[in-house]
Amino acid sequence: MNVIKSISIIGAGNLAHHLGKAFAGRIKIYSVYSRTHAKTQVLAKKLDCFAAEKLEQIIPADLILVCVNDDSINHIISTLPKSQKIAYTSGAVELETLNRQVDVGVLYPLQTFSLDKSVDLSNVPFFIEAGNEELSQSLFNLAGMLSEKVVYANSADRKNLHVAAVFVNNFSNHMVHIADDFLKSKNLEWTYLLPLLSETVEKLEYSSPFDAQTGPGRRGDEKTLNEHSEMLSGIQKKLYQLITKSIQTTYKK
Amino acid sequence: MNVIKSISIIGAGNLAHHLGKAFAGRIKIYSVYSRTHAKTQVLAKKLDCFAAEKLEQIIPADLILVCVNDDSINHIISTLPKSQKIAYTSGAVELETLNRQVDVGVLYPLQTFSLDKSVDLSNVPFFIEAGNEELSQSLFNLAGMLSEKVVYANSADRKNLHVAAVFVNNFSNHMVHIADDFLKSKNLEWTYLLPLLSETVEKLEYSSPFDAQTGPGRRGDEKTLNEHSEMLSGIQKKLYQLITKSIQTTYKK
Repeated sequence: MNVIKSISIIGAGNLAHHLGKAFAGRIKIYSVYSRTHAKTQVLAKKLDCFAAEKLEQIIPADLILVCVNDDSINHIISTLPKSQKIAYTSGAVELETLNRQVDVGVLYPLQTFSLDKSVDLSNVPFFIEAGNEELSQSLFNLAGMLSEKVVYANSADRKNLHVAAVFVNNFSNHMVHIADDFLKSKNLEWTYLLPLLSETVEKLEYSSPFDAQTGPGRRGDEKTLNEHSEMLSGIQKKLYQLITKSIQTTYKK
Repeated sequence: MNVIKSISIIGAGNLAHHLGKAFAGRIKIYSVYSRTHAKTQVLAKKLDCFAAEKLEQIIPADLILVCVNDDSINHIISTLPKSQKIAYTSGAVELETLNRQVDVGVLYPLQTFSLDKSVDLSNVPFFIEAGNEELSQSLFNLAGMLSEKVVYANSADRKNLHVAAVFVNNFSNHMVHIADDFLKSKNLEWTYLLPLLSETVEKLEYSSPFDAQTGPGRRGDEKTLNEHSEMLSGIQKKLYQLITKSIQTTYKK
């Protein structure tokens, strides 16, 4: 098995920053390239490496890590030299849909990253896939430098995890946004609900979401459900009713 | 102002347990009554107080704390002696809908409680309301023994907070349940998503949910949205589409 000792990074967004910083000091980072040179320079400075102005200037390495948006992955990978091993970091893009698949793999960290907030990668699951066993193992070991939870997963599993992640992260966050929006319209602050939100998540560390469910929907408290529904309007009301229906269906099974 | 130095508790559910244990050692607890005597006995033993078999046996105290389900509050309060000060703990029941309102107030902790998990009450917001100023202040100080966040709020505000709490707790939890349910059907484990869930909440401690939103809905990534939608069915598909629509509407404003 080939041990990956050096990388170059394409992309300079949140994920490129977090992975770059995590790998710095563990392996060599040769260069960074992104479409926006100002962003490239910021990241290259952080990682103490070369800031490529053009894609052709990216320095060949044991691996090029492609951290760009889903729509650009195929094009970028097609452009890189055939001799170059590559991994991309997307949950949604299937390996088999790419024009080039030889020496291409996936290293997908299932986490949400913000530029200004550090994340402990050691407990973040990394999902690995590659067309051949050797690259697959190399990527497994590479991810193992950062995380204790590295798992082989094919493109279908990765897509399934990505859908689930949308519910867990994007949709939960939107539920909190609705609470915020609704309370603001009543001159109340949603920050009153932060301890409730923390406890909601803490419970799920030892209880299944099925068992942890509480509230008027699960209890079938029709009086409160109707009152709440009357207090809401527009799409918030529709959401209240549909999610309540889904909760009630869950516990009628 | 009358300082509350003693209480009796009606109810022996999660909230009665948590509040009872929190007050024990700080004020005197005379007695507990609930409809199910076995549960009454468990709590009374924990609190080292009298286990009343009938409501009439509850020992008068500076305050009787009524921790029963919403539908029973009015009846219980009507039954208690006129000379007895009372507080109930519900977010949804309006003071003005009760048959008796004299010397009746509200002490509403905005949190979710499970029997087997201790909760730090010091950061839990308590919302206080009473028909007269004196009881209102007494309840404010009583809650202040447990929490640093005690706030006066009328019944309308309390109801608004309760609706918001349904989104933050019940609906977020249901989003995680759907992720769990979906992944199970694909032979994958939702626990892979726990670090993502923790991070989702950690972000909200310093960022608004509006700013924290990420994902294909916010980005307007139609290809991924369509693919995800195709992977789901039934009410899960409807939820995916309606919540996505709500996210897109939020960022078009």
